[in-house]
Amino acid sequence: MAFGWIDEQAELRRRAGLVRTLRPRPAESPLLDLASNDYLGLARHSEVTEGAARASRTWGGGATGSRLVTGTTELHSELERELADFCGFEAALVLSSGYAANLAAVTALAPHGSLIVSDAGNHASLIDGCRLARGTTQVVPHSEPEAVRKALHTHEGTAVVVSDTVFSVDGDEAPLAEYAEACRERGAGLLVDDAHGLGVLGDGGRGAARAAGLAGADDVVVTVTLSKSLGSQGGAVLGPARVIEHLVNTARTFIFDTGLAPASAGAALAALRLLRREPERAARAGAVARELHARLTASGLEAVRPDAAVVSVRAPSPEKAVRWAAECRAAGLAVGCFRPPSVPDGISRLRLTARADLSEAEIERAVRVIGETRP
Amino acid sequence: MAFGWIDEQAELRRRAGLVRTLRPRPAESPLLDLASNDYLGLARHSEVTEGAARASRTWGGGATGSRLVTGTTELHSELERELADFCGFEAALVLSSGYAANLAAVTALAPHGSLIVSDAGNHASLIDGCRLARGTTQVVPHSEPEAVRKALHTHEGTAVVVSDTVFSVDGDEAPLAEYAEACRERGAGLLVDDAHGLGVLGDGGRGAARAAGLAGADDVVVTVTLSKSLGSQGGAVLGPARVIEHLVNTARTFIFDTGLAPASAGAALAALRLLRREPERAARAGAVARELHARLTASGLEAVRPDAAVVSVRAPSPEKAVRWAAECRAAGLAVGCFRPPSVPDGISRLRLTARADLSEAEIERAVRVIGETRP
Ligand SMILES: Cc1ncc(COP(=O)(O)O)c(C=O)c1O
Ligand SMILES: Cc1ncc(COP(=O)(O)O)c(C=O)c1O
Repeated sequence: MAFGWIDEQAELRRRAGLVRTLRPRPAESPLLDLASNDYLGLARHSEVTEGAARASRTWGGGATGSRLVTGTTELHSELERELADFCGFEAALVLSSGYAANLAAVTALAPHGSLIVSDAGNHASLIDGCRLARGTTQVVPHSEPEAVRKALHTHEGTAVVVSDTVFSVDGDEAPLAEYAEACRERGAGLLVDDAHGLGVLGDGGRGAARAAGLAGADDVVVTVTLSKSLGSQGGAVLGPARVIEHLVNTARTFIFDTGLAPASAGAALAALRLLRREPERAARAGAVARELHARLTASGLEAVRPDAAVVSVRAPSPEKAVRWAAECRAAGLAVGCFRPPSVPDGISRLRLTARADLSEAEIERAVRVIGETRP
Repeated sequence: MAFGWIDEQAELRRRAGLVRTLRPRPAESPLLDLASNDYLGLARHSEVTEGAARASRTWGGGATGSRLVTGTTELHSELERELADFCGFEAALVLSSGYAANLAAVTALAPHGSLIVSDAGNHASLIDGCRLARGTTQVVPHSEPEAVRKALHTHEGTAVVVSDTVFSVDGDEAPLAEYAEACRERGAGLLVDDAHGLGVLGDGGRGAARAAGLAGADDVVVTVTLSKSLGSQGGAVLGPARVIEHLVNTARTFIFDTGLAPASAGAALAALRLLRREPERAARAGAVARELHARLTASGLEAVRPDAAVVSVRAPSPEKAVRWAAECRAAGLAVGCFRPPSVPDGISRLRLTARADLSEAEIERAVRVIGETRP
């Protein structure tokens, strides 16, 4: 039978205890959420949800076509202008997801004959971008500028270094300034994915590139998602106008994809304006993460010092990580659980995300539950 | 300078007259729209826009995480159940776009060592899926079942045939029944992208697979978009439960992507319910397309007989196609324009889309403007 081979794989997964299942959540969850990427607590903010509602009424339920045909509304352009301005770049291009933004940026900036130097800790969407791109990819060890430098020296001609700014598994920050220096020595471009930096790092949440003094540089391109700090859906590429024009003309996940839904554009725009008005939310997310980390390590757990809002706690094994997360959930706390094959190094973790709107009492409760359920 | 090479490409595009630019549209466009993929005219329907607004208020501006972490709401599950039920499949999985759904389906169904047989007219997202998949791709001439049969005979082991149901450029339908027959002779799977069939083809808009008697078959998988007939954003994979479970466990564009925004899920669900209640909308979209075609060819234009809601009109050259579309626009009519490199065969076209809610007077006006502006 055509798809019979699937059953064998499913059986192997079952035996290895690696089956993933969907767990639909209700609108009002009784769980304390330390699992989502809603870093600023804006997804349920009334200005954001009303931004979505208003946009849907004004512009419709969908964009109705590719951005190059009917799918660009004035709302999309407004969002692009404000995103570029906020993050300090010349121009921005909004896509239907952060995943699509990464596929677009990597493929557009790595033409035939070029070299892509890719950090080993990069997100799946950057990796898929490398696989789709016409250039040749060289994967370098995680966060080692010297390895990037070496890789760039093996190649004459167009090259681009690709990295997350904040790695989603451990929440550690990439050595952006050093990566930029290595790029500049060789005239290479730098493309960084600020999915977990926007809204948390940099002055008022303006992102990791801004924090590293790289915003607006003519050799730097940044991708962001609208789905984490901005509490919506979508992604964007920020960079020099020439790069954005190039994407409009060549990036397949931009050209052959329906434009972002107006409601999502409206929600992201409302969140961005809120963040401008209340910049302290950004610093608070980072502070909550550091507090979580300090208390967890004080209680003897092994956790990576957070550079942004992600706190990664080591678990002894995949099975124990799964059980640990399940016991947290039973005690009213939602946490993420990363285990093979989703982690590049085979180490399983609980993944906690700090939210700017967590109260002291909630932080206290989270730390207590994690401690009490530890394997 | 890092991105200097981009300028040379831009200059070549300029010289070839192939520069694409974004044209933001206002909320109330004065243009008659024959360019969008809003086939049923539902994107601005109040039930659909209210569905988005309500969902955003109830569930938030974004899904807040991957579907496997916090990104599955009960709304997502409801949409999946109703989509599967409507189209006649055992199960469904919703993704953030039709593009992501195609990447997910192709990569998950074409493991290492397998063969993918891909119709030459396929959409960019299926092609990118083939490029990301571990299997080997063999591209076969457009809509030739005999070529598919031959390709399948070159391979022992797992194989999948991949095709659009309605091709986006010319609006012609794939020979689905013949493709299925060729697959069954060899125990191969059939994966079809019904982006332009859902809502238009099959009993009450249940899609091309239903029309061909293939819905619910254990060797058939269908992808759809929520961004065309359903007036929203997003995509879905429909198929046997084992295939959907397999996607949940292995598809990167599902696992590593934020869940679809609640507003988009809510809009799509409202549109689906509307279509169930008013099934005549589906037949009307097809009838409008056939009427457009009949009138255009009667006036001496060369147009492909539409199998669904897309009407493709031949243009003498890329430059003349662009000017023709511009003159239509100046006369108050929005039409699509396909030209190299977006068309596989190098032939430029005006691309018209029928909408179920076009009035006789609007059809009349569209035909008149297209005729009067013809090159
Ligand atoms: C580092 C990183 N980049 C990109 C993405 C994809 O963004 P989106 O979910 O908005 O498609 C994610 C997570 O989803 C991510 O963690
Ligand atoms: C045939 C086909 N498949 C897939 C897609 C992608 O769907 P979406 O725009 O919802 O991502 C499109 C158009 O956008 C299409 O025409």
